[in-house]
Amino acid sequence: MINVAIVGATGYTGLELCRLLLDHPKVQIKHLYANSNSGSVFSDLYPQFKSKLDHTLEVFNATSPPSVDLLFLAVPHAQSHAYMHELYESPLRIIDLSADFRLDSSQNFEKYYNTTHQNPLLMKSIVYGIPELFSNDIKKAKCVANPGCYATSVILGLYPLFKEKLIEGTIIADSKSGASGAGRGAKVSTLFCEVSEGFSAYSTGAHRHEAEIEQILGSKVFFSPHLVPMNRGILSSLYIDLNKGLSTEQIIAMYQTYYKNCPFIILNKDRSPNTKYVSGSNNCMIHITQVKGKTVIFSVIDNLIKGAAGQAIQNMNLMYHYDESEGLPSIGHYL
Amino acid sequence: MINVAIVGATGYTGLELCRLLLDHPKVQIKHLYANSNSGSVFSDLYPQFKSKLDHTLEVFNATSPPSVDLLFLAVPHAQSHAYMHELYESPLRIIDLSADFRLDSSQNFEKYYNTTHQNPLLMKSIVYGIPELFSNDIKKAKCVANPGCYATSVILGLYPLFKEKLIEGTIIADSKSGASGAGRGAKVSTLFCEVSEGFSAYSTGAHRHEAEIEQILGSKVFFSPHLVPMNRGILSSLYIDLNKGLSTEQIIAMYQTYYKNCPFIILNKDRSPNTKYVSGSNNCMIHITQVKGKTVIFSVIDNLIKGAAGQAIQNMNLMYHYDESEGLPSIGHYL
Amino acid sequence: MINVAIVGATGYTGLELCRLLLDHPKVQIKHLYANSNSGSVFSDLYPQFKSKLDHTLEVFNATSPPSVDLLFLAVPHAQSHAYMHELYESPLRIIDLSADFRLDSSQNFEKYYNTTHQNPLLMKSIVYGIPELFSNDIKKAKCVANPGCYATSVILGLYPLFKEKLIEGTIIADSKSGASGAGRGAKVSTLFCEVSEGFSAYSTGAHRHEAEIEQILGSKVFFSPHLVPMNRGILSSLYIDLNKGLSTEQIIAMYQTYYKNCPFIILNKDRSPNTKYVSGSNNCMIHITQVKGKTVIFSVIDNLIKGAAGQAIQNMNLMYHYDESEGLPSIGHYL
Amino acid sequence: MINVAIVGATGYTGLELCRLLLDHPKVQIKHLYANSNSGSVFSDLYPQFKSKLDHTLEVFNATSPPSVDLLFLAVPHAQSHAYMHELYESPLRIIDLSADFRLDSSQNFEKYYNTTHQNPLLMKSIVYGIPELFSNDIKKAKCVANPGCYATSVILGLYPLFKEKLIEGTIIADSKSGASGAGRGAKVSTLFCEVSEGFSAYSTGAHRHEAEIEQILGSKVFFSPHLVPMNRGILSSLYIDLNKGLSTEQIIAMYQTYYKNCPFIILNKDRSPNTKYVSGSNNCMIHITQVKGKTVIFSVIDNLIKGAAGQAIQNMNLMYHYDESEGLPSIGHYL
Repeated sequence: MINVAIVGATGYTGLELCRLLLDHPKVQIKHLYANSNSGSVFSDLYPQFKSKLDHTLEVFNATSPPSVDLLFLAVPHAQSHAYMHELYESPLRIIDLSADFRLDSSQNFEKYYNTTHQNPLLMKSIVYGIPELFSNDIKKAKCVANPGCYATSVILGLYPLFKEKLIEGTIIADSKSGASGAGRGAKVSTLFCEVSEGFSAYSTGAHRHEAEIEQILGSKVFFSPHLVPMNRGILSSLYIDLNKGLSTEQIIAMYQTYYKNCPFIILNKDRSPNTKYVSGSNNCMIHITQVKGKTVIFSVIDNLIKGAAGQAIQNMNLMYHYDESEGLPSIGHYL
Repeated sequence: MINVAIVGATGYTGLELCRLLLDHPKVQIKHLYANSNSGSVFSDLYPQFKSKLDHTLEVFNATSPPSVDLLFLAVPHAQSHAYMHELYESPLRIIDLSADFRLDSSQNFEKYYNTTHQNPLLMKSIVYGIPELFSNDIKKAKCVANPGCYATSVILGLYPLFKEKLIEGTIIADSKSGASGAGRGAKVSTLFCEVSEGFSAYSTGAHRHEAEIEQILGSKVFFSPHLVPMNRGILSSLYIDLNKGLSTEQIIAMYQTYYKNCPFIILNKDRSPNTKYVSGSNNCMIHITQVKGKTVIFSVIDNLIKGAAGQAIQNMNLMYHYDESEGLPSIGHYL
Repeated sequence: MINVAIVGATGYTGLELCRLLLDHPKVQIKHLYANSNSGSVFSDLYPQFKSKLDHTLEVFNATSPPSVDLLFLAVPHAQSHAYMHELYESPLRIIDLSADFRLDSSQNFEKYYNTTHQNPLLMKSIVYGIPELFSNDIKKAKCVANPGCYATSVILGLYPLFKEKLIEGTIIADSKSGASGAGRGAKVSTLFCEVSEGFSAYSTGAHRHEAEIEQILGSKVFFSPHLVPMNRGILSSLYIDLNKGLSTEQIIAMYQTYYKNCPFIILNKDRSPNTKYVSGSNNCMIHITQVKGKTVIFSVIDNLIKGAAGQAIQNMNLMYHYDESEGLPSIGHYL
Repeated sequence: MINVAIVGATGYTGLELCRLLLDHPKVQIKHLYANSNSGSVFSDLYPQFKSKLDHTLEVFNATSPPSVDLLFLAVPHAQSHAYMHELYESPLRIIDLSADFRLDSSQNFEKYYNTTHQNPLLMKSIVYGIPELFSNDIKKAKCVANPGCYATSVILGLYPLFKEKLIEGTIIADSKSGASGAGRGAKVSTLFCEVSEGFSAYSTGAHRHEAEIEQILGSKVFFSPHLVPMNRGILSSLYIDLNKGLSTEQIIAMYQTYYKNCPFIILNKDRSPNTKYVSGSNNCMIHITQVKGKTVIFSVIDNLIKGAAGQAIQNMNLMYHYDESEGLPSIGHYL
């Protein structure tokens, strides 16, 4: 049993961490931090937690961190930088869900995030937490950088082909995400009436998750995100050319080998996946097909779970040598 | 042909005024005002107006109003108060879509709006603009207070019974509105993820439109609004007791008589109306039925059209002795 | 540990039973029946169950029922009638989620369901399964009739006041449900484009759940259901008159007493509930307020869980003397 | 003034034809046909047409067609084949919104539609009706085949580059459509609960509109359609390689030249378009950008208007030498 605290508990990722951790048999939630709502009771803001999580929200101060085992940082980018100076010296283990330590180089960070990185020395020490790829490093890590939601869907969809050096030229990643990916900040662009009954691309060729994807896949990726009028879910449609003739069956067999010990990867041979098939679960469902010489891979996740809170807990499970699936939902709610 | 200007052009009501007035054969839009976006070009904010409404947004100054015939004030409540001191002395005619001059008494206003009315003397001089009820006054009006969206749906649904003094006891008005009624301000409560896949009551017994409804209907009204995860539309379910035995047919006949010259009132004898049947139009569709001694009336409107911009244009048509329906859509878009 | 089978596994209620029972620590799912899809593999229809529930769907034959402990009948009304002749003689225990045995009298059934009841003698022997009201009978029952979703929300919202004989005159129950309540049959009226961006009343004063509500509450109920463009959730707005002056606090205190041992009833004193607060959980959240001499009670449930599959499992838990909450989600997914 | 009739009036395309034609100043709707609903009154099915379109729905018989000027066939594919034998000999002009005469060759038709073409001789005689490309032919046509919705969005988005022979290799057309594209037939896959809160690809590399696109663009097209949980709108994200270095500005200039007399094409230089910007209008909005050596073009239309009924009316306007825009909405409803 470990004690944890969550910084940024009232955003959608924080909320999802609270919900999932409450059902985790080996975790106690000790502190919830949310600067803008400090002093309020968490279950007054989210009544579904009445009598289950009645913690008062606190102001987080990195110089006097709580005495827990693990801290989840569910904060906007550029906020973990400063915290990490102190936290890295503390006995705490950390899972940082912000983007601050996902990239290896401060130049790359600064190019995509338009702000100076305040802690570049640590960038290479912090493990990029995709359990299906880097479980050995995660198990030993003091601090894990939890990947971006889009990045998770794209990287898991392409990793075996990348590792086998089979991808030729530029990858086209046409990704589509539900609105919860934009967070819970009050913005006109994510009002119900702006999102509902509309569909659009945004940040074409300039989205920040592109940096993570290219860092891991080492290829040129044309990342093209779109906003879907729904709450949860990401579908990435990945169009690639192979440098070698391979049948669909051969590719699937390769993926089966790569992911054979991965409880949350589901290869769906028969059918293109709907985000509904994974929403509410920590699964990533992948479907591969070939048409007119192109290979296309569809990869779906729940952006708040496998794309954020669930993957963070999966990382935590590895760090504490729990069963990787402990406390994580494996069947979604479909509707 | 008249020239008009719109103050508050970038909110949802202003947007709808722009769209409908552009198609009105007897109106020219001369100025668009929007303080927070002044300097921007309207069609940059709303690209659907490219090359059709490329006006630069201006700051509105009531002391030097534009030289147009009519001004639409599509501003938040408490903003028309101050404007009206100057505007009422100007040669302009005015349709005020804010709540500031809908009520007769400043006490009542202050009770519901928690702010001092700055122009109480004018309250009784300004006509409450429901064309189906007060067309004679509207035709002569210098200034019309355009009714609230909920109030329009409830008042039109009950007016004939009220006029015939047939309603007994408290009216229960259980109303449901799409999210555009909450406006285009950035608020957490109207984010896509907060509204989608959820349904709730709000402001039970304390909503501001209740004051308008009671003023017109002269009855006690228990007004109970709810938020529906959709963009447009209001359905009011109105539960009443009659002080006299009347068959459904008799009530319908009474409504037919009252509304016989009203092009936008549709009595649907056969079927309970869906908001879809009116969305995109200026219609109000009413259905009456009786069950277990209770009379229930369902009344639907498009909150942005008959509940706001469309009714304002209908009022304008009357003020200028145009055909009441001129420039107003009579068949909605259904989906 | 008990073995169960589900008849009607591919409808939305069956699907939800499968999902929840898979996570129940004391249940094994042995057979899934679905006549129209027999021969198919369940997880081919619903890929989220891949490798978790790969049962082949079977044709159900009541004359040779499976040798399990408990059978869930998640079938349309009028289908359980015939089944029950044989099943009631078998050693099986049964939870019937159809409407066939919810009512006490065949006349009442025939009035509301327009079909002859084929098994009227059993009607009084089968327990109406609201655990918060009838747990003693449920514990001993061979067969439980699982209540309707609307009925559950209305009855739980009013039961303490009814038991104390405090309700005067006709109850107005203005209820709103998400579209999953209409089931998974292919019908034009529940197509996405017919439901989305629309809101309407239906079956006013003629809905079948009215019979259950009146049977339990013994009052005249004007039941007025509406369809909300969302998947899950019911909100019932219940307007009543009391025959005695009682403060809101007194009513809340009474509800606290009545429901003090009920793990799934949440009294929310501060706030009108959103269906989001319970969706994904087995909870019923109730809020009580008084305005202008009327008492209004808002009651929300997830129609597929507390309104169907979850309540069925809660009944099963009681029948087998498990903890009432075993295997049931107590915190919903909010978005 | 011309007289028209609509075959298939009760589907979504037929409904939209009715709505738009009612507002067309030079058209009278004389007959409405709908075999499955024959005998019913159109406005009983769609109450928004009460007192505006109260025609009784008739059974269509191609051997005794109505004496009108123009017939719209809004029927499923494979139904126009047989009709056309008789209709082509009649004095009627025809706009066929089915897929039956869009392709040039019966082999191609049979490959994509899995059914024998019953009227192959006519295939080359019937004009493919994209007014921006083929207005001269349309003006003289007896019969126009109205293009598919997806095809319209893709072809308009790429036509200038195709004509200038600038496209290299396979085009990737990742298209996303609202649910109205699937029509009004009762199917499980388009139920509200199946579509809402889900996103998926479908018919990857096997969708029928691919045949039209390749026929017009003469290139290999990898067409990849997806279903969006919304009613209206298509966004096509078109990824291409050019065989020659061209700046974005040069491409835009070329498009401006090609489309300079096209009232419904809007080139949006500044911003990636949302389907909201065109929904409710007959516009196609196009945005072009270049990233990492790839050119991407976003093209949005309202699938029911520019993708179906609106384009049919635009074709009709050309056939009768009316103003191309007559009766067609140029500004959408946004929300």
